Amino acid sequence: MNALTEGQRLRRPVPDAMWEALQARFGDRLSRAEAVREHHGRDESPYPAMLPDAVVFAQGTDDVAFVAGLCNAHGIPLIPYGSGSSLEGHLLAIEGGISLDLQAMNQIVSVNAEDLTATVQAGVTRKQLNENLRDTGLFFPIDPGADASLGGMAATRASGTNAVRYGTMRENVMSLTVVTADGRVIRTASRARKSSAGYDLTRVFVGSEGTLGIITEVTVRLYPQPEAVAAAVCNFDSLDAAVQCVIETIQLGVPVARVEFMDAAAVRSVNLHSKMTLRESPMLVFEFHGSPAGVQEQAGLVQDLAREHGGKDFEWAERPEDRNRLWTARHNAYFAGLQLRPGCRASTTDVCVPISRLAECVGAAAQALAAASFPSTIVGHVGDGNFHVLMLLDPDSQAEWDESERINHAIVRQAIEADGTCTGEHGVGLHKMQFMAQEHGEDALALMRSLKHAFDPNNILNPGKIVSW
Amino acid sequence: MNALTEGQRLRRPVPDAMWEALQARFGDRLSRAEAVREHHGRDESPYPAMLPDAVVFAQGTDDVAFVAGLCNAHGIPLIPYGSGSSLEGHLLAIEGGISLDLQAMNQIVSVNAEDLTATVQAGVTRKQLNENLRDTGLFFPIDPGADASLGGMAATRASGTNAVRYGTMRENVMSLTVVTADGRVIRTASRARKSSAGYDLTRVFVGSEGTLGIITEVTVRLYPQPEAVAAAVCNFDSLDAAVQCVIETIQLGVPVARVEFMDAAAVRSVNLHSKMTLRESPMLVFEFHGSPAGVQEQAGLVQDLAREHGGKDFEWAERPEDRNRLWTARHNAYFAGLQLRPGCRASTTDVCVPISRLAECVGAAAQALAAASFPSTIVGHVGDGNFHVLMLLDPDSQAEWDESERINHAIVRQAIEADGTCTGEHGVGLHKMQFMAQEHGEDALALMRSLKHAFDPNNILNPGKIVSW
Repeated sequence: MNALTEGQRLRRPVPDAMWEALQARFGDRLSRAEAVREHHGRDESPYPAMLPDAVVFAQGTDDVAFVAGLCNAHGIPLIPYGSGSSLEGHLLAIEGGISLDLQAMNQIVSVNAEDLTATVQAGVTRKQLNENLRDTGLFFPIDPGADASLGGMAATRASGTNAVRYGTMRENVMSLTVVTADGRVIRTASRARKSSAGYDLTRVFVGSEGTLGIITEVTVRLYPQPEAVAAAVCNFDSLDAAVQCVIETIQLGVPVARVEFMDAAAVRSVNLHSKMTLRESPMLVFEFHGSPAGVQEQAGLVQDLAREHGGKDFEWAERPEDRNRLWTARHNAYFAGLQLRPGCRASTTDVCVPISRLAECVGAAAQALAAASFPSTIVGHVGDGNFHVLMLLDPDSQAEWDESERINHAIVRQAIEADGTCTGEHGVGLHKMQFMAQEHGEDALALMRSLKHAFDPNNILNPGKIVSW
Repeated sequence: MNALTEGQRLRRPVPDAMWEALQARFGDRLSRAEAVREHHGRDESPYPAMLPDAVVFAQGTDDVAFVAGLCNAHGIPLIPYGSGSSLEGHLLAIEGGISLDLQAMNQIVSVNAEDLTATVQAGVTRKQLNENLRDTGLFFPIDPGADASLGGMAATRASGTNAVRYGTMRENVMSLTVVTADGRVIRTASRARKSSAGYDLTRVFVGSEGTLGIITEVTVRLYPQPEAVAAAVCNFDSLDAAVQCVIETIQLGVPVARVEFMDAAAVRSVNLHSKMTLRESPMLVFEFHGSPAGVQEQAGLVQDLAREHGGKDFEWAERPEDRNRLWTARHNAYFAGLQLRPGCRASTTDVCVPISRLAECVGAAAQALAAASFPSTIVGHVGDGNFHVLMLLDPDSQAEWDESERINHAIVRQAIEADGTCTGEHGVGLHKMQFMAQEHGEDALALMRSLKHAFDPNNILNPGKIVSW
């Protein structure tokens, strides 16, 4: 598919002195094996792998600082690797260099139950954290589809199905430990819930995709596990009716925890993948959190709204196991979609628009997809105005790739014209760089570039991602 | 009091060519009158005024861009002026230059009710916005004590009594129009509720106190006016009992909208200033937002918790006018405090700590203040771990100033040791710069400085604030 060829890459050769220094410190934790490099030079994007020169397996912040210092001294690219689930080519070593695998940095450093905070190493995954919290009565709500690492989630400003109630990584990261380009270790903030003490370094690094510094520890906000939880699905005759129901839910101030849209194809894929029997028409999946009385009240209000918009079969998942099954199915929508076309690679869109513009944007996308030569599904975090198109492509067909890119461009153009963004939660990586000027304007992009130059003067940190040098 | 003397100031002379260009464009809207400069060279901080060379009254973003371009070309300081209510010396023209008054930029640009957003010019105040929203069923929750401008509130990352439920300006600014140091106009983000499209320029400018760019328009999140609101006061035997009640309230997940602490002296000052008869002992003021049933449920839970901690006289302000009176009194606590000692100037602290450390930090502050030679009050946004000490000083007494600074330092030191911050919501300005290295460490401070250098290479934007050059 579409990617830089080896010939186009500006590979920077790693000097012998640097190999020796890495070998001396890391021994077995340095690998130059093809299979290991291949595994670290790809992600879930449609791009073919672009291999780093070596992989280093870090065990702590001091390892990261050591490698950063070395790469900076020699001008060698350094790409942090969490769980490899990014979707936009974030991890591709387009200029070679070192992939720094942080998966062994998987310690829960501290849980402060009174303060509703936890500090974890960057390699801890969201499921691991929630397993660990189970007995505390607390939970961490941010849930991208994959079981991503907290470091990676912070680096891509991830969110998921709970964002409408609990926010994204932007709102839920309180502080980070970061290794700078020259190997210094900083902490971006205290554990105070709010601060006006200078520039917001935390938010500078959240969403910076490894291009400004390497996140090695993350302090996040936790929430009390809700006393009562209820989930339900409801089918609609049209996308428009479903979205209108969501707009009115939000405007009424119903603190809905989740509200997800799936088109008929997405429901079908989930039925096939998870052996479910959901009705295959436009569907909303709701979840309500609160006290038992509060949940009942919220659910009643939303049921009334759904009925007004022709919603059918408000079906409750009462038992925790039914609820988990439903949400697991929703989280697996990406992989379920892939199975609609065996052997395919997926290209996903991720636009997010003001909710008043959502119906027209999803509608136009659906129309374009109906005429496409490949299958696709649409799912959306509709409470946030964020939706994903999953285009299922023959990896050997340039024609399909080109067609998907045309549709992708049209979806993004319309989203930006609607005062939205080209990416709600997946990040820029390689694939969205082409939209940055259109979305932000050249002057804002120039400011981003000056930030990159200030924080990474030798351009070693995940070079060639987000903004060109 | 403590401030730079005229002799210490690095005043940069404004060249004739610049005066001519300003005069040609602004005419009457350029003032070099002493009284106007005096008014713009001070804020609510304890510092004496430090006058700019002139004041320009801007009417639009293009005016701001013009002045920035001119100042940048001539290396002249430029200080944006909102409503003059900052507390840390933000507005003092320590190197002279131009004060840019944005108060005439007071247009509500748009209200998008379906999307729960509003875009306003920087000079619009929070009360003006809420007046304008009254008939929409929506409101904007962030409420510092003063009727500050939205531009100023964004620039200081302000918050107030509602932050425990609705967040601060950090969470509630969606996008900004900003004039850069060289006079270019950028927009930092779209109106999408979330985005992963590159570096978070919005959060870079929120809290930057006019040192990285000049905010000319602000897009904020709005919220549905709650269907039901209830407020109550409750007195406790000790600070500790009150704080413990708050910790348990937050941990239970009660979505309390406001929970404010006042010590006996603060209650007394409010009684005197607002002619109220509140019991003069440690007090919590609560507010609950939600459906009628939801509010009743929240209030019941909190009443039970308060009772367990010896809370007395849970008194309800049932009618809207009683509630408004109570909150107006609370918002006026700063001015009420000033009246405890006629002719005084106030020095305020603003530390914010993890809530588990709040009782010990407030307790130590109270102990230090009990032995002080001047009167003081303590109020706190306790749900956030943020509290303020208002020290009422004789403006002619260097001894009192020195004593207040010793207490201030001790309070900040303890807060930082408790993993908190020197300023929860007031900002750094001049007065908190001395704590930045202690709080952030030299390496993080160096990164902040490199950000300043990248965004304002000629050091014209509010120079000498937040970080030294």
